[in-house]
Amino acid sequence: MATVNRKIVLASRPDGNPVPANFRMEEGPVPEPGPGEMLVRVLEISMEPAIRGWLDDNDKNYFPPIPIGGTMRGPVIARVVKSNVEGYEAGELMRGLLTWEDYAIATKDTILLEKVHAEPDVPLSYYVGVMGTSGITPIIGLDQVGRLQPGETVVFSAAVGSVGHIGAQYAKHKGCRVIGIAGGPDKCKLALDEYGYDAVIDYKSVPDLEAAIREVCPDGVDVYFDNVGGATLDAMLNNMKTFGRVVCCGMVSSYNCSENPPPIYNAWQIVARELEVKGFLLYTYAEHLPAAFATNLDGLRTGWLKYRECKKTGLANAADLFCELMSGQTIGKTVLEMDLPELEA
Amino acid sequence: MATVNRKIVLASRPDGNPVPANFRMEEGPVPEPGPGEMLVRVLEISMEPAIRGWLDDNDKNYFPPIPIGGTMRGPVIARVVKSNVEGYEAGELMRGLLTWEDYAIATKDTILLEKVHAEPDVPLSYYVGVMGTSGITPIIGLDQVGRLQPGETVVFSAAVGSVGHIGAQYAKHKGCRVIGIAGGPDKCKLALDEYGYDAVIDYKSVPDLEAAIREVCPDGVDVYFDNVGGATLDAMLNNMKTFGRVVCCGMVSSYNCSENPPPIYNAWQIVARELEVKGFLLYTYAEHLPAAFATNLDGLRTGWLKYRECKKTGLANAADLFCELMSGQTIGKTVLEMDLPELEA
Repeated sequence: MATVNRKIVLASRPDGNPVPANFRMEEGPVPEPGPGEMLVRVLEISMEPAIRGWLDDNDKNYFPPIPIGGTMRGPVIARVVKSNVEGYEAGELMRGLLTWEDYAIATKDTILLEKVHAEPDVPLSYYVGVMGTSGITPIIGLDQVGRLQPGETVVFSAAVGSVGHIGAQYAKHKGCRVIGIAGGPDKCKLALDEYGYDAVIDYKSVPDLEAAIREVCPDGVDVYFDNVGGATLDAMLNNMKTFGRVVCCGMVSSYNCSENPPPIYNAWQIVARELEVKGFLLYTYAEHLPAAFATNLDGLRTGWLKYRECKKTGLANAADLFCELMSGQTIGKTVLEMDLPELEA
Repeated sequence: MATVNRKIVLASRPDGNPVPANFRMEEGPVPEPGPGEMLVRVLEISMEPAIRGWLDDNDKNYFPPIPIGGTMRGPVIARVVKSNVEGYEAGELMRGLLTWEDYAIATKDTILLEKVHAEPDVPLSYYVGVMGTSGITPIIGLDQVGRLQPGETVVFSAAVGSVGHIGAQYAKHKGCRVIGIAGGPDKCKLALDEYGYDAVIDYKSVPDLEAAIREVCPDGVDVYFDNVGGATLDAMLNNMKTFGRVVCCGMVSSYNCSENPPPIYNAWQIVARELEVKGFLLYTYAEHLPAAFATNLDGLRTGWLKYRECKKTGLANAADLFCELMSGQTIGKTVLEMDLPELEA
């Protein structure tokens, strides 16, 4: 086993979009697990916009901020190296909210801790994506929060993002009309060609997003799955049907500017259209996780679900990859694969 | 029976706060009811902030705009004079969304049409207030939309308004902690002295509304009953508990400026706190109306519910009274009582 543990720490707080200089690689000894702890080897790191929120020093988030000099936090897949946690043995695969480093310490209280029983026909990195939280987020959000019904019209912002491209295919599979919002012609073409969107709006090229949505949804929208907030949410509020549901899953437009978030002007439509605008964190819906994983596994195996990763290899690339994600340059699920050879089980 | 019908028409569209010059009294003949119509004598007119929304020429509302020169629309109590509507006979009391005039025409499709069976110990004007839509709006909003539970903390904006002062007493009767937001020392004193609020915040005098709410609700708020929207809603979003519910009943802060509504900056908290922000129009909850009326009648009779009206008499005062309501000068339920002597039944 290696004796050096590399880690990515937060060097400085980003001002707006994060840049690679906000992060730094450090080296230290591989930690020794104490009582109730286990040492795990990180194999795959999920890059997620929510991480951006933890880089600001405020109390506006559901997790505390990462301190300056602290190791970056995020969902990972790892293999147990040495365990003092009951039920976990060396060699087993697990996942949870851990840290961007070669070797991390987990406990029974690690957030989202669970064993991973990887299917032989499913790549391991899929377990931080389509078979992980970002993959089942749209399934549970659409069903449990949006109460999406066959025949309804649903709109996804971040149409080809980690959540959107899976949600769109699931909604289509359910028999819904599916509309996407994405930035740039490449993303729009992909959405139409690969993920079955009935129509896609390029928010970077239309002069009036609200009017563009109305053009493709003249009868209004039943469910809006919101990943971006801000002006897009505002345009959607004026396009919802009466009793429409807005599933608030993320507001990436705010993440780079938490002290000066983009305003919403159309809140009155919540009353006028009797909308239900509901925030949604996956952690609250634990009992629905197994069925959602089964749905996506079925989708992958029977072919109704195409999954796309934007993957880089090597911990040294973690900061670059995260910055690309936060500036809208990645398509699909963004994953960092670690570069040390995996240990023998 | 009189042969002249006086009516208040919309003379011009208000720019911001409505002023009396936006309205005009006209006279015309008393209309003759055709097939399927009934002629009614208007007795009480409910003055409501929602009416302001119908004065703007846009499609942002749940009812179409009142045209220039058109008769003002609003909920009224009236007595049937001549009926070609099955089930309604001359002399009976009814209510519904009609018009600001001596004599109006109703049909079976009149919105919110129903007979009024006035209790002998309840003044007739109460049937557009505590025993009308504004009186049961907080009961149904708190129970059906807010799912308010005993022991929870609830906040009302417009604390001594037609909805707030009833909702506060109902919540207190249910065993909740009740906080109010109102403008000016008179309204705040009234809220504390008469309506059982546990604390009241004068939004006109505090330097930081969000901090003032936090001071009286350090553990957060379970249910916010929103009548005003805008900056107050924004301050509340940062003070809700996880899984808090925002009952969006009205956004009076937007009604005088529908083309330039006040922005909301804290929408991210809908995600971070997993809030449910839900619009609410009474018309949707018809099956809950009888129980809500029974609740308020019980409150009036057993004394847990004190009801306050701001009443003026005479159709000529209707415009003035409405303008006072919209500029925050009235306290309690604003009612216009008509001035013609009531006909014999």
